[in-house]
Amino acid sequence: MRAEHLETPAILINRPVFDSNMEKMARLLAPLKVALRPHYKSHKSIDIAHLQVRAGAKGITCAKVAEAEDLALAGIEDILIANQITEKSRIARVAYLAKGCRITVCVDQSQNIRDLEQAAAVEGSTIHCLVEYEVGMGRCGVTTHEAFRDLAMEVMACPHLVFDGVQAYAGQLSHEMDGTRRAEEAQRIETELQSLLADLKKWQIPVKEVSGASTGTVELRKEDTVYTEVQAGSYLFMDATYRQMGLRFENSLTVLATVVSTRPDLVVTDAGVKALGVDQGNPVCPALPGASVNMSEEHSAFTFPGHPFHVGDKIRLIPGHCCTTMNLHDFFYFEEEGKVLNRLPVTSRGKSK
Amino acid sequence: MRAEHLETPAILINRPVFDSNMEKMARLLAPLKVALRPHYKSHKSIDIAHLQVRAGAKGITCAKVAEAEDLALAGIEDILIANQITEKSRIARVAYLAKGCRITVCVDQSQNIRDLEQAAAVEGSTIHCLVEYEVGMGRCGVTTHEAFRDLAMEVMACPHLVFDGVQAYAGQLSHEMDGTRRAEEAQRIETELQSLLADLKKWQIPVKEVSGASTGTVELRKEDTVYTEVQAGSYLFMDATYRQMGLRFENSLTVLATVVSTRPDLVVTDAGVKALGVDQGNPVCPALPGASVNMSEEHSAFTFPGHPFHVGDKIRLIPGHCCTTMNLHDFFYFEEEGKVLNRLPVTSRGKSK
Repeated sequence: MRAEHLETPAILINRPVFDSNMEKMARLLAPLKVALRPHYKSHKSIDIAHLQVRAGAKGITCAKVAEAEDLALAGIEDILIANQITEKSRIARVAYLAKGCRITVCVDQSQNIRDLEQAAAVEGSTIHCLVEYEVGMGRCGVTTHEAFRDLAMEVMACPHLVFDGVQAYAGQLSHEMDGTRRAEEAQRIETELQSLLADLKKWQIPVKEVSGASTGTVELRKEDTVYTEVQAGSYLFMDATYRQMGLRFENSLTVLATVVSTRPDLVVTDAGVKALGVDQGNPVCPALPGASVNMSEEHSAFTFPGHPFHVGDKIRLIPGHCCTTMNLHDFFYFEEEGKVLNRLPVTSRGKSK
Repeated sequence: MRAEHLETPAILINRPVFDSNMEKMARLLAPLKVALRPHYKSHKSIDIAHLQVRAGAKGITCAKVAEAEDLALAGIEDILIANQITEKSRIARVAYLAKGCRITVCVDQSQNIRDLEQAAAVEGSTIHCLVEYEVGMGRCGVTTHEAFRDLAMEVMACPHLVFDGVQAYAGQLSHEMDGTRRAEEAQRIETELQSLLADLKKWQIPVKEVSGASTGTVELRKEDTVYTEVQAGSYLFMDATYRQMGLRFENSLTVLATVVSTRPDLVVTDAGVKALGVDQGNPVCPALPGASVNMSEEHSAFTFPGHPFHVGDKIRLIPGHCCTTMNLHDFFYFEEEGKVLNRLPVTSRGKSK
């Protein structure tokens, strides 16, 4: 079946572009000896996670316990939950999961370490831990080397926990549009992490992993990067926000919409904010370059005098944010040259717990 | 079970406030002799739709064919799809649905009317139509009385279609914060619709329904309003955006989150843009009044020096937009005085087709 026969809104992923993005990431990381641990949050698809592992990813990063459960049940054996798991009921689920596969979580406070140890002891499992170091997101993480050391030593003292290293995700840089500023700030973080690692070495705390980096900053890594693994997600799809940054990856994900109303200067489609994540900006329509867009829940209205569209036409939109767009859909479609190759579920859609 | 034991993020709806909002709407409309046809988009819950019908709603408004199917299967017998249905496959579904219940759609072009007639003829069903009149949204709808007349007459000439009247939804006013401007513009629209109705009467086109109005404008209706039915949705829940407008309805919907990290001036929760619709603005935390908030996919970080929260604490957030928040969750919880009364599905979550 051809893509234009799909009911809309529908997520289409151009398979050759998707494959090419996957290869580009492998070629980018190969000389750096940095492992790829791609972030599940971008696609929430176990099918894509399997493709990534087959293409060389050492494991998968995710954000939530419910996502980790989906990954484990799908046979992914090395899972990083790049987040603090602080509720007792969830910690129990993590400790149970850790019996069946390798689970790593982030920590940034003592009580949480004690709770994780207790739950793992109950299950007789082992939970790996990264101590989170705050590198500018204004979110989780410790802010001093000494605080890092103290938590790392607490983890090391727990018989059912393993201290693996540092979580240092600089999400605030992912969409820094000024390339010079992005490079400078990424270098500042590398220098700061080198200094942290030097102190940890002095304190005889062995660091195996430094995990972080995103699609927006992975290209800035040099051969001497301190990062050992990269958590990029959006590189497979790209989106309107990332597209402005001049990265090497190309846009593979579009949302197919149907034109439901027109005026001479207006094209109204059936894809609104319930089909297109707008948290990082509005969608762009490549067929209507420069058009301004007015979004509502179930419509996007593009102002473009003299447009060529009629009611019933199909139209492609590049969402402002690929990750929150995938999360709005139950399915996505792989396509090649306009032909539908497969319909696959967004396995963990809506799993925010 | 008490609300604080729920895994988060979780949507809580305070049942007494919810019931009070329902009663307030009934009291507001009673003297106006305007019917309530509440919008399903706000809750996407068949349980709530049934509560609304039991409380006097004449039928339900929705936006999508997939929502109409959920409503019909749940026994709702009078459904308005307040939208243009333009794809042949969807029109066929509408024509089929119309065999089992009363279905009304909006139209704003000739070809669509011909397609609807053809599909209804195939099924031997009857589809009711409102012609959409553009009242300032910059979206669908005809813009002149003559265009309206021509479409109404086309509908009336179709044996399987019934012309019911006017769709005139002024969504652009729903969040107009300036009460005076909102009232003036609502009056301008009433006057314009009166003029349209006068012309239609002159042309001997009988108008049974004038459908429209939202939570933000329903209070502006006077006894001589031209509207015969109101499509309000958010009145049951309210949200941070509507709360600023000083309406009579109160906030019943909160998202329960867990504090996952703190610093002396920062509270980080586990509810981000995948749990809180941010298309109309960021959430508000009543316990941290005036705090600035930094949203990411799975976190909201509130800056509030001297806050009283600790990791593991539960915290309530009022989302910026109730409708897009409901659409991100599989379930919601009714609660009363902190006690969970019931867990109910968001029946049509994600049904954007």
